[in-house]
Amino acid sequence: MKNRRNFFKKLVAGAGFVSLSFMSKKVDATNLKIDMEHGFIHHVFFWLKNPENEADCKRFEEGVNILITVPQIKISHVGKAVESPRDVVDDSFTYSYMAVFDSKADQDDYQVHPTHLKFVEEYGDLWEKVIVYDAMN
Amino acid sequence: MKNRRNFFKKLVAGAGFVSLSFMSKKVDATNLKIDMEHGFIHHVFFWLKNPENEADCKRFEEGVNILITVPQIKISHVGKAVESPRDVVDDSFTYSYMAVFDSKADQDDYQVHPTHLKFVEEYGDLWEKVIVYDAMN
Repeated sequence: MKNRRNFFKKLVAGAGFVSLSFMSKKVDATNLKIDMEHGFIHHVFFWLKNPENEADCKRFEEGVNILITVPQIKISHVGKAVESPRDVVDDSFTYSYMAVFDSKADQDDYQVHPTHLKFVEEYGDLWEKVIVYDAMN
Repeated sequence: MKNRRNFFKKLVAGAGFVSLSFMSKKVDATNLKIDMEHGFIHHVFFWLKNPENEADCKRFEEGVNILITVPQIKISHVGKAVESPRDVVDDSFTYSYMAVFDSKADQDDYQVHPTHLKFVEEYGDLWEKVIVYDAMN
């Protein structure tokens, strides 16, 4: 699986802009709007049972980094909660995971993809709560 | 404000891949991972007071399309909830809005940007509930 990760094209922050690197081409992006006719966005928030446990976090990150190799995923982001004093901010979760698909059909295929099923089966013991929010353009 | 929107670079879904269009350059993206050293992702979910009201939805979309012109936003996505029978999916919200910033500092600047303050002031009557989840790589 590790080798498959090498295929990932990185979106790297530069000095004041985001640099999109794909194959040998590079573009500097400012205000890039994800605007797909049938674009499907999948937001997932995980509350780990032991969010302070480094081994658990490492295991979760290992799992989610395999998960995002599912070919239907076109854009992905994995992050850790940022604390905030603002009332509207829920900073109680541990990890966020966002994936963009071309269509609802692709997201349906992802749901039953062996890599996704394996992620839930092998890493599902790590979290006590998950919330998913799905949306389309 | 409308003119500023023309500056947006579109990320358009193609046949089985995502086509990134920025200026005159084009790249076809598959499994694009947003992987920024100091990347900050801001997920916001809005529950409108009248989610079935077309005029309210139109007004909200108008507002959020101005909001995403804030220059600190590097990547954004706006979507409407997709219904799901799955237990872990919360499909009760109306709109999702996702923005990626280069850093926490940029997100702090965005919070006090006049366009953001104006959005809350001018459109805040439309929603009854907001949840924000902030995360970093």
